[in-house]
Amino acid sequence: MADSRFFAKAGPFSLAVLAERCGAELAAGADPAAMALDVAPIDVAGADHISFLDNKKYVEAFTVSRAGACLVHRSLACKAPAGMALLLCDDPYRAYALVAAAFYPRPAVVPGIAAGALVDPSAILGDGVRVEAGAVICARAEIGAGCLIGPNAVIGAGVVLGEDCIIGAGTTLSHAILGKRVNLFPGVRIGQDGFGFAMGPKGLLSVPQLGRVLIEDDVEIGANSTVDRGAGPDTIIGAGCRIDNLVQIGHNVHLGRGCVIVAQAGIAGSTHLDDFVVVGGQVGIIGHLHIGAGVRIAGQSGVTRDVEAGRTIGGSPAISMTEWLRQSALLGQLARKKGR
Amino acid sequence: MADSRFFAKAGPFSLAVLAERCGAELAAGADPAAMALDVAPIDVAGADHISFLDNKKYVEAFTVSRAGACLVHRSLACKAPAGMALLLCDDPYRAYALVAAAFYPRPAVVPGIAAGALVDPSAILGDGVRVEAGAVICARAEIGAGCLIGPNAVIGAGVVLGEDCIIGAGTTLSHAILGKRVNLFPGVRIGQDGFGFAMGPKGLLSVPQLGRVLIEDDVEIGANSTVDRGAGPDTIIGAGCRIDNLVQIGHNVHLGRGCVIVAQAGIAGSTHLDDFVVVGGQVGIIGHLHIGAGVRIAGQSGVTRDVEAGRTIGGSPAISMTEWLRQSALLGQLARKKGR
Amino acid sequence: MADSRFFAKAGPFSLAVLAERCGAELAAGADPAAMALDVAPIDVAGADHISFLDNKKYVEAFTVSRAGACLVHRSLACKAPAGMALLLCDDPYRAYALVAAAFYPRPAVVPGIAAGALVDPSAILGDGVRVEAGAVICARAEIGAGCLIGPNAVIGAGVVLGEDCIIGAGTTLSHAILGKRVNLFPGVRIGQDGFGFAMGPKGLLSVPQLGRVLIEDDVEIGANSTVDRGAGPDTIIGAGCRIDNLVQIGHNVHLGRGCVIVAQAGIAGSTHLDDFVVVGGQVGIIGHLHIGAGVRIAGQSGVTRDVEAGRTIGGSPAISMTEWLRQSALLGQLARKKGR
Repeated sequence: MADSRFFAKAGPFSLAVLAERCGAELAAGADPAAMALDVAPIDVAGADHISFLDNKKYVEAFTVSRAGACLVHRSLACKAPAGMALLLCDDPYRAYALVAAAFYPRPAVVPGIAAGALVDPSAILGDGVRVEAGAVICARAEIGAGCLIGPNAVIGAGVVLGEDCIIGAGTTLSHAILGKRVNLFPGVRIGQDGFGFAMGPKGLLSVPQLGRVLIEDDVEIGANSTVDRGAGPDTIIGAGCRIDNLVQIGHNVHLGRGCVIVAQAGIAGSTHLDDFVVVGGQVGIIGHLHIGAGVRIAGQSGVTRDVEAGRTIGGSPAISMTEWLRQSALLGQLARKKGR
Repeated sequence: MADSRFFAKAGPFSLAVLAERCGAELAAGADPAAMALDVAPIDVAGADHISFLDNKKYVEAFTVSRAGACLVHRSLACKAPAGMALLLCDDPYRAYALVAAAFYPRPAVVPGIAAGALVDPSAILGDGVRVEAGAVICARAEIGAGCLIGPNAVIGAGVVLGEDCIIGAGTTLSHAILGKRVNLFPGVRIGQDGFGFAMGPKGLLSVPQLGRVLIEDDVEIGANSTVDRGAGPDTIIGAGCRIDNLVQIGHNVHLGRGCVIVAQAGIAGSTHLDDFVVVGGQVGIIGHLHIGAGVRIAGQSGVTRDVEAGRTIGGSPAISMTEWLRQSALLGQLARKKGR
Repeated sequence: MADSRFFAKAGPFSLAVLAERCGAELAAGADPAAMALDVAPIDVAGADHISFLDNKKYVEAFTVSRAGACLVHRSLACKAPAGMALLLCDDPYRAYALVAAAFYPRPAVVPGIAAGALVDPSAILGDGVRVEAGAVICARAEIGAGCLIGPNAVIGAGVVLGEDCIIGAGTTLSHAILGKRVNLFPGVRIGQDGFGFAMGPKGLLSVPQLGRVLIEDDVEIGANSTVDRGAGPDTIIGAGCRIDNLVQIGHNVHLGRGCVIVAQAGIAGSTHLDDFVVVGGQVGIIGHLHIGAGVRIAGQSGVTRDVEAGRTIGGSPAISMTEWLRQSALLGQLARKKGR
C-alpha cells in the first residue's frame, strides 16, 4: 500500500506470526499458515491484505470488505463476511500499530558520518551513530550509540544524547541532556534562553538562564516545537511524553510521564503537570500552576488556576467541562429567546 | 521605491505597456507614451510614479496626490486631480499586483550548484535548477526544471518537486510529492510523522505513518508552518492554496483548491476542506470534519462540527456568525444591566 | 549551581563588588570583604552563596535560609535569619539579574570563520565576527563587528547586521536591516514575503512585497518566531522589544519601543503598536489597528478594534478587562441558577 519511493516493505508474514506479534487470537476457521502481503484500509483491502476495524463508523464497510484477514474486537466478529480470517483482539488499533510496524519497520540506522557533516574533534560518538550531511556537532557533545542525527541538525556544545535518539532535519539543541529513544522532529528548538527579564531604568534586562532541558526516555516532540531551558531549575519532559507540532514549553516547566500535548498548545514558565495529563490543541496554560495527574484539557482552553487530578476542563478561562457546556448552551438559549 | 539592496528594478515602462500588462484602459487625456519609472503609494508618489487607489480610506489622499499615473476604479475617476493619467480597471489592487511585478519581477533563477551544497549522486536534477550553499538533496530525490533550493534546505530521500518550485532557506521535506510552482517559505516542515498513537500497557505506541504529502500546483506555504504526512491515506494540499506562517496541518487532511489559511491556524487529522474555504488566524479545527466549499471561519474560532458550504462561522465552539455576534452583544447587555 | 557542561562560572566576588554591580546597599553587619562563590535559590543556598528574595511566597523559606548573603527589599530585611549578610535594594529581581550576569557572563565571541561556514566573497565582515560551522552568508551582506552567526544560520543577500548581534542556530534572514545587539533565537524567520494577494480570475495572485524588516537596537526574538517583510512600507520592530517563541508578525506591522509579545501571539498586517505595549500569550490582533502606548492585553484575547493608550483588555473579541471579568462572572451565575 505504502509508496515504495518512501517506504520499504518487509514480509510477507503468516497470520500465525502476525497474531503473535500483536497478541491477537486466530478465530476458528482462520488458517495460521495463510500469508498476508501488506496492510490496507478496510474498504480497499484485498485477499492478500490484513486490515483492522477500530471505529464503529466502519462496521458497514467491514461487512462487505474483501480483506483476506482483519484485526477485530471479539464483539464484532459476528459481522464479518464469510471467508475473512479474523484476528481477535481487545484493542484493534494497537494491534494494527504492531502489525503495520512488522510490514514497515523503522529503517535501520546506517552508521557513519556523511560527507559534509561537521563534527567537532572533541565530541564523543557512540557505536553505530549516523550523522547526516550538513549536521553540526559542537564541542564536547556526547552522542549515544545508534543515534541518527538528521541533515543540517545542530547539536550544541556539551549536549548529551542517550542511545537510539533520532534528531530531525534542521533541529537544534543546546544546554540539554536527553535519555534514550528520544525522537525530535524537524525544526524542533531545545535549550534556548527562557523568556525572563527584569524591568530596568534603561529598558528590559535579561536574567541569565542557568538551567538545562532534561528529556527523559521515549519522548517525541513534533515539528517546530520549542522547549526553553530552565532559569535556574531545569525544564523537564517526563518519560514517554508525546508533544505535537508548534508547541511552546516555557522555562522551568515540568511535565510528568506520558503527557500528551496537542499542536500549538503553550505552557508558560514554572508550571508543573503531573503524569498522563492530556492538553488539547491551542490550549494556553499560564505560569506557576500545578495540574494534577490525568487532567484532560479541551482544545483552545485558557488555564489560569491549579487543577485537581482527574478533572476535565474547558473554556477560557477554563472551568469544569460540565459547567462550560452548560454556560455555552444557556447563552445560546438566551440569545435565541431575545432574537424572537 | 524599493530598497535597491534587496530589489532589482526593471522599466521604465510606458503607460500603454503597463495598461496592457494589467488589463486596464487608459482614460481620455492620458498619454500612452508617457513613461513611469516606479510604483509608489498614493501619498508619496510623484510625477514619475504610478500608484493605485484600492481602499476608500485613501480617496482624500488621491484627490491631492501628485502621482503621474494611477490605477483606479472607473467609479472614482471623477475624484482625480487635474493632470493625473488614469488607468481604469475593475480591481485596482489586482492591477497593482501586475504592475508591481512588471517593475520588480521575481529574480531569475541562476542555474548551478553552489559550493557547499550537498547533492546525493542518485538525485536527479532538471534543467536550470539552482541549489544554494548548504542545501542537502538526499538519495533518489527528483528536482524539476527551474527549481530554486534555498540555503540549508533539506530535500529528503525520494522527494519529488515539479518545475519551478522555490524551497526556502532551512526548509525540510520528506515523503512528499510537489506539483509545479510550489513556494515553500523558510522553515517549513513537510512530511514528518503525524501525531498518531495507540494506548498500550507500557505507554503510548506510535502507529506507523505510511502516507505521503501531496502538494498540487501553485501552492504557497508560509514560514515555519508544518504539514504532517498521511497515516495511510495521503495529506493533500489542493492547487492554489495559500497557507500563512506557523500553520499546522495534521495527517490525512485534504484541502481543496484555493483555500486560504491565515497564520497560526491548525487543522487536525483527517479533516477535509472543500474548495475556496477561508480559515482565519488562530482558528482550530478538530479532526474528521467536513467543511464545505466557500466556508469562511472567523479568527480564533474553534470548529467542532461539519460545516455546510457557503456558511460564515465564528466563536469557540463555532456557530453561525450571526448567532455568535448576537450572543456577544446579549452578554454585554446583561452584564451592563447587572453592573448598574 | 549551573551545570559546568554548559556554563562557565566567574568569581568569586566580594559582597562589596557585587553590591556595586547591582546598585545595592550593604546592610549593617554585612562584611564587604566576604566572598560569594555562586548564586543559588533561597531554599538551597549555602554559606558561600548569594541568593535573592523577590516573591512574597518565599518569605518563609527566607527566614530559615542558610544563604551567606541575600538580595532583599529593605522592607523585608527584618525577617532575615541571624548571620545572613543583606544587600538592600529596590528591585531584588533586577539586582539578581546583574549579580547572576557577574557570575555567568555571556561567553565572549571567539573571532573567526569555522570550517564548513560558507561566506560569499562579496560579504563584508566587521572585526571580531564569529561565523559557526554550516552558516551561510550570502552576497553583499554586511555583518557588524562582534556578531556571532550560529551554526547553519543563513544571512540573506544584502542583509545588514549592526554590532554585537547574535543569530541563533538555523535562523534565516532576508531583506532585513538590524541595529546593534539584536538577539535572534534559533529558527527565527525574518524577511520572507508577507501574506498578500489579490483575487484573480485564475486564482490568487501574489502581490510583490517590496518592503524590508527593520529591527532596532537591543531587540530579542524567540525561537521559531516569524517576521514578514513589508509590502511597500517596512515592518519595524522598535528598540528593546522582547518577542517570545512562535510569535507571528505580519507585513507592515510597526512595534514601538519596549513592547513585550508573549509566546504564540500573532499580529496581522499594518497594525501599529505604540511604545511599551504588553501582548499576552496566544493573543491575536487583526490588521490595520492602532494600539496605544502601555496597553496590556490578556492572554488569548482577540483584538478587533483600536485601543486607547493605557488600557487593559481581554476576551475575544477583546473588551475592557473589567467588563470581560464581569461578563464571565455573570454567565457563571446564570448557568448555576439555571442548573438548580
